Amino acid sequence: MSDPTLDVVAIGNAIVDVLAPADDALVEKLGLSKGAMNLVDADESARIYAALGPAVEQSGGSAANTCAGIASFGGTAGFVGRVRDDQLGEVFAHDLRSIGVQFETRAATSGAATARSMILITPDAHRTMCTFLGAAAELEPDDVPSELIRAGAVTYLEGYLWDQPLAKDAIRHSAAIAHAAGRRVAFTLSDSFCVERHRDEFLALIDREVDVLFANEAEITALYETDDFDAAVAAVQPHCEITALTRSELGAVVTGPGGVYVIPAEPVSHLVDTTGAGDQFAAGFLYGLTHGLEAEDCGRLGALAAAEVIEHVGPRPETSLRKLASPILD
Amino acid sequence: MSDPTLDVVAIGNAIVDVLAPADDALVEKLGLSKGAMNLVDADESARIYAALGPAVEQSGGSAANTCAGIASFGGTAGFVGRVRDDQLGEVFAHDLRSIGVQFETRAATSGAATARSMILITPDAHRTMCTFLGAAAELEPDDVPSELIRAGAVTYLEGYLWDQPLAKDAIRHSAAIAHAAGRRVAFTLSDSFCVERHRDEFLALIDREVDVLFANEAEITALYETDDFDAAVAAVQPHCEITALTRSELGAVVTGPGGVYVIPAEPVSHLVDTTGAGDQFAAGFLYGLTHGLEAEDCGRLGALAAAEVIEHVGPRPETSLRKLASPILD
Repeated sequence: MSDPTLDVVAIGNAIVDVLAPADDALVEKLGLSKGAMNLVDADESARIYAALGPAVEQSGGSAANTCAGIASFGGTAGFVGRVRDDQLGEVFAHDLRSIGVQFETRAATSGAATARSMILITPDAHRTMCTFLGAAAELEPDDVPSELIRAGAVTYLEGYLWDQPLAKDAIRHSAAIAHAAGRRVAFTLSDSFCVERHRDEFLALIDREVDVLFANEAEITALYETDDFDAAVAAVQPHCEITALTRSELGAVVTGPGGVYVIPAEPVSHLVDTTGAGDQFAAGFLYGLTHGLEAEDCGRLGALAAAEVIEHVGPRPETSLRKLASPILD
Repeated sequence: MSDPTLDVVAIGNAIVDVLAPADDALVEKLGLSKGAMNLVDADESARIYAALGPAVEQSGGSAANTCAGIASFGGTAGFVGRVRDDQLGEVFAHDLRSIGVQFETRAATSGAATARSMILITPDAHRTMCTFLGAAAELEPDDVPSELIRAGAVTYLEGYLWDQPLAKDAIRHSAAIAHAAGRRVAFTLSDSFCVERHRDEFLALIDREVDVLFANEAEITALYETDDFDAAVAAVQPHCEITALTRSELGAVVTGPGGVYVIPAEPVSHLVDTTGAGDQFAAGFLYGLTHGLEAEDCGRLGALAAAEVIEHVGPRPETSLRKLASPILD
């Protein structure tokens, strides 16, 4: 078997974020679950947009953000996801390619517009997402090149993709190719409401296909229907080689063959916008994992990347993560 | 004659900005005039975009930014400019309407895409613009409703519009309507290269149609082909009722029937991005002018609005200018 030529190949929803400040009253008035990813259709998307103030547009998408983070560490990544041949699709592709992430999925020439996620940032720095999946929802197995999957040391998959029937096949197909090539499969639970929608399938996937699992406390406890984080940690361990479970300011718990590690959160001087925190934790962790670091140091890189992204608006790093990580990496 | 129902009606290029950090070497390599607005065609736009790193998209356009500033002061504004019925056109319209600016120009259903301006922000906080005018260049006299012009106490026009033959007719037409209705016409020289391209027409327009002129030092000295700012001030005075001439950290010089006033710049704690400084100066000045303030206080409002916008990335206010201005207005 040949060696991988990329650190990570990620499959996810290709999304442009529409970032707008909002107060709690607006989140409530719009009937949104605060802190969650709310799926909306085109009409609802238009209704919510009309209620928002001025916004800023910036490339996003959970797994794509993770690719951007890996590139910022100096790692190599490829992304698979579907956009339309429209302006936001062009923005999405540009922003990934300009940082060296391989992105070759052909833009759809018909069908729904490129996905957008309106992200309401409340004064407490938390974000509530309203996602119109658009073209991203049309990802299908043919969009995933087998060669690309085989090229990645890790294939990283978004739980969010489970909201799209065709994408599920693409994911199962990719996981099979990755394992046949001797690669690892990593998965993120993405969102606690997403876990509620797909619990049984997620449990089966984790048991059979997932080598590295990412989740935050709300997601992992939702998966095992418990209020007790430690019980959830105990429940997941037998099913995965490695788990990285994040707890915001409480840091993270990493479990692996070597044991269980508690990783403290990095200090944050000014919390601005939590968008992308989980995505960047995964970036740091996967960069470490694909560069031979121990699980504990992978967790430290994840905590460092998460701390950078929550100090500014937007889901991707604005500072070189490689430089920030030099005390760990050099 | 009926009273105006809006403070300002502005006509300008409807543009979405693509803001990207850049270094001086990149600006030079791309063959751009640093600090200027460089007009580019679709091919050149694509070439420059491909050379830029990740960017953020945000509504811009000089006169539209001024409308946003006037709204932030609590004033009323209408905007006229042309977008396409595409995603960036939707973003542009949303961002203006969501802050209460009247924007009714119908989106074009064919022709070029909504204008975009790539703005390269160098570490010295200066910006270099590469503008693809697209749909904005197709503004024509029919796009300007006479009723709207008559509704504004001031009709505000961008010098940038002079790069578009059809728009010139729209502007001359609007100025005539405004004056016939007893309103004032304000004009900004926009950019020193723009002045070089259209010096003779600008001189004639200022002499015949312009009551309130905005320019920065580079623009007013370019207009009169002199290196001497004071000579340029003396040259323009006989041709305009009011002039507001900005000089970055040296503040501004305002001339009016009451005399000549030197307005100090507001202190700035952290200079980030000069994009929008002139636009917001005009917003403060026009808000003051349409609310009965003396020329000197109009200048102070302008300086205050300019100081706010250069402390963050992006060309429109992020803080309520009305609140910032309460020491002057209350």
